[in-house]
Amino acid sequence: MASTLVHTDISNTSQNIIKRIYFDNAATTPLDKEVLEAMLPYMLEHFGNPSSIYSYGRETRMAIENARKSVSKTLGTTPGEIFFTSGGTESNNTAIAASIRDLGCMHIISSAIEHHAVLHTVEYYGHNKEVELSFVKLSEEGEVDYEDLEEKLKASKSKTLVSLMHANNEVGVLLDIKKVGELCKKFDAYFHSDCVQTIGHYPVDLSALHIHFISAAGHKFHGPKGTGILYVNRQISIKPFIIGGGQERNMRAGTENVYGIVGFAKALEIAMRNFEKDSTYIKDLKNYMHNQLVKNIEGVCFSCQGNTLYTVLSVCFPKNEKSDMLLFNLDINNICASGGSACSSGADAGSHVMKALNKTEKWITVRFSFSKYNTKEEVDIVIQKLKQFV
Amino acid sequence: MASTLVHTDISNTSQNIIKRIYFDNAATTPLDKEVLEAMLPYMLEHFGNPSSIYSYGRETRMAIENARKSVSKTLGTTPGEIFFTSGGTESNNTAIAASIRDLGCMHIISSAIEHHAVLHTVEYYGHNKEVELSFVKLSEEGEVDYEDLEEKLKASKSKTLVSLMHANNEVGVLLDIKKVGELCKKFDAYFHSDCVQTIGHYPVDLSALHIHFISAAGHKFHGPKGTGILYVNRQISIKPFIIGGGQERNMRAGTENVYGIVGFAKALEIAMRNFEKDSTYIKDLKNYMHNQLVKNIEGVCFSCQGNTLYTVLSVCFPKNEKSDMLLFNLDINNICASGGSACSSGADAGSHVMKALNKTEKWITVRFSFSKYNTKEEVDIVIQKLKQFV
Repeated sequence: MASTLVHTDISNTSQNIIKRIYFDNAATTPLDKEVLEAMLPYMLEHFGNPSSIYSYGRETRMAIENARKSVSKTLGTTPGEIFFTSGGTESNNTAIAASIRDLGCMHIISSAIEHHAVLHTVEYYGHNKEVELSFVKLSEEGEVDYEDLEEKLKASKSKTLVSLMHANNEVGVLLDIKKVGELCKKFDAYFHSDCVQTIGHYPVDLSALHIHFISAAGHKFHGPKGTGILYVNRQISIKPFIIGGGQERNMRAGTENVYGIVGFAKALEIAMRNFEKDSTYIKDLKNYMHNQLVKNIEGVCFSCQGNTLYTVLSVCFPKNEKSDMLLFNLDINNICASGGSACSSGADAGSHVMKALNKTEKWITVRFSFSKYNTKEEVDIVIQKLKQFV
Repeated sequence: MASTLVHTDISNTSQNIIKRIYFDNAATTPLDKEVLEAMLPYMLEHFGNPSSIYSYGRETRMAIENARKSVSKTLGTTPGEIFFTSGGTESNNTAIAASIRDLGCMHIISSAIEHHAVLHTVEYYGHNKEVELSFVKLSEEGEVDYEDLEEKLKASKSKTLVSLMHANNEVGVLLDIKKVGELCKKFDAYFHSDCVQTIGHYPVDLSALHIHFISAAGHKFHGPKGTGILYVNRQISIKPFIIGGGQERNMRAGTENVYGIVGFAKALEIAMRNFEKDSTYIKDLKNYMHNQLVKNIEGVCFSCQGNTLYTVLSVCFPKNEKSDMLLFNLDINNICASGGSACSSGADAGSHVMKALNKTEKWITVRFSFSKYNTKEEVDIVIQKLKQFV
């Protein structure tokens, strides 16, 4: 019953949404109605504390363990290696803190274009002189220089953690996660990857990778905000980051966000079920926008031409008085796109990624990022508007 | 529209709920349908990332800031002192970690009957020899020995944090939070109180207290799981526990759980709006159950007769072969009550509170905890069943 009712409701409200064009799906995505339907029973009748031993508790405990099984199966791992958290940032913090505290890492190799959830965290431990901090060289497009990474690993004198994101959230550049895993294996280093932009968008088979930690966030693939996972390879043993009760097999204390966990698993299930269809559709949309931009906007170029996220198109517009107002003009025309990561836009300090890649002097960079809900008609409208604003 | 639909839905499903009696509201509470209605728009059309600067983002930013204003007004403080977290446990961890790391506390005074979110956390820092750890003396009913606390504060040779819960979640005993605040003021100590069992159940006026941190969790007063707050007195300055983006004014990184935050604020608003009515009703229910137990069950007594939570009745049944199976028998009769805190029942190690108060040898202790949704008819059924099982 709940499903039909919510379905109707969503159909009604979509009338209001249609006026806006949401091209910022790398920041967050609308909740899939099928996900909401899966969550609602756990917001209504199945409300027990999963740690309670009676019927109400067992129901929600079961929901969590089923979610864990589903997620672990999708990611090619075992339920014992998946821990639910409050989001990608908490997962990243947990992996990095545990690597230092529990695994004895004294050296972290990361990159200057990591998301702040990683970058600020490794800088925090680096500034506290708890660990040595190195950044790998990057190409102009943000691609990791694997030779430099190998040299740094070779030269490292202490236990090392490599923390490199699977895909950059601003320019979209992808990491060869298998290659980095092999390098870490060769030099006996731990490997953490912030997979917030790839889990739910790519099939990831953890059994085929040499990796110790990955992080993901539900709201990046039409799941709920406030939910995430941390994968911890069963070969390592760490202590909880948030201490207290015995939840998550003593690995993450605090009453579980049951509906969030159920929603995370459902969103991942849907994403992988429809992966071929959705990814083909979105790739086509991105290519269409790319080609329309080249055709219609003089002097336009792209942050990254290589192997990038199919969801993200990072566009460089020539810097001038008019384009300086571009994001503002898009906004007042109900077009949502972003200048950098949402998480840093509150700070209003500009994009650390674009600075690191030397893009800020000549270009105004706008990230357009797509989902299954976007259309070519929306691209056409955005192109028309861009012609006016650039 | 959403509201009517969800309302209908709740009415339908309540048919299934009626068979069970839920007397474990100190573990978690069912979500208020008015809270769900407030949350739904932020699960549907208002989905933007609050850190995004365009319209979708501003809507959700506004929702968060309105929630913060509402919560701070209710608690007699300012919006700048309220931080949204993933729950009470994270809030407790943040306060304790920050007291050591940022405020220079080298000594923590706490109690043996704190919730594990505090107890395990202070033990963690104590075992790491980062801080000295002391526990105040308690009465047999769990009441803090204020003279002992004063002596400990007087004798403390280093910067001290006092962490004492406002109300114990198992026996219900209440702390004189004003008195402890005054003692902390006298000896220049920091004061943190885990208020997870009191916020949403009592009016708390922080402006009248000398206190530096309080923690609360939404799901304890018919709000959503996965949501909490940390109050940080504006006179102190701490760093984030979860590091990353600039969310929560650089105090708690990670994309905000917007619907959770909206739900937390709405639940608190409803709780305080209906406080007189609901608390009178629940007190009456508790007294009724107390009297019926005395009348009907031979040898029954109560963990705490003094100043206790009106929501919690901790009952001691004489230990024998029959009563040993009490919780099990209640469960198979669809009566939900608990032997200790839910957060420790997963660990199956028995209640650390009952052990600390020497209740485990002679008694089987069961916590019955009530909400506005419980009735006297439910109490009558439970009493009838208890007569069979004890």
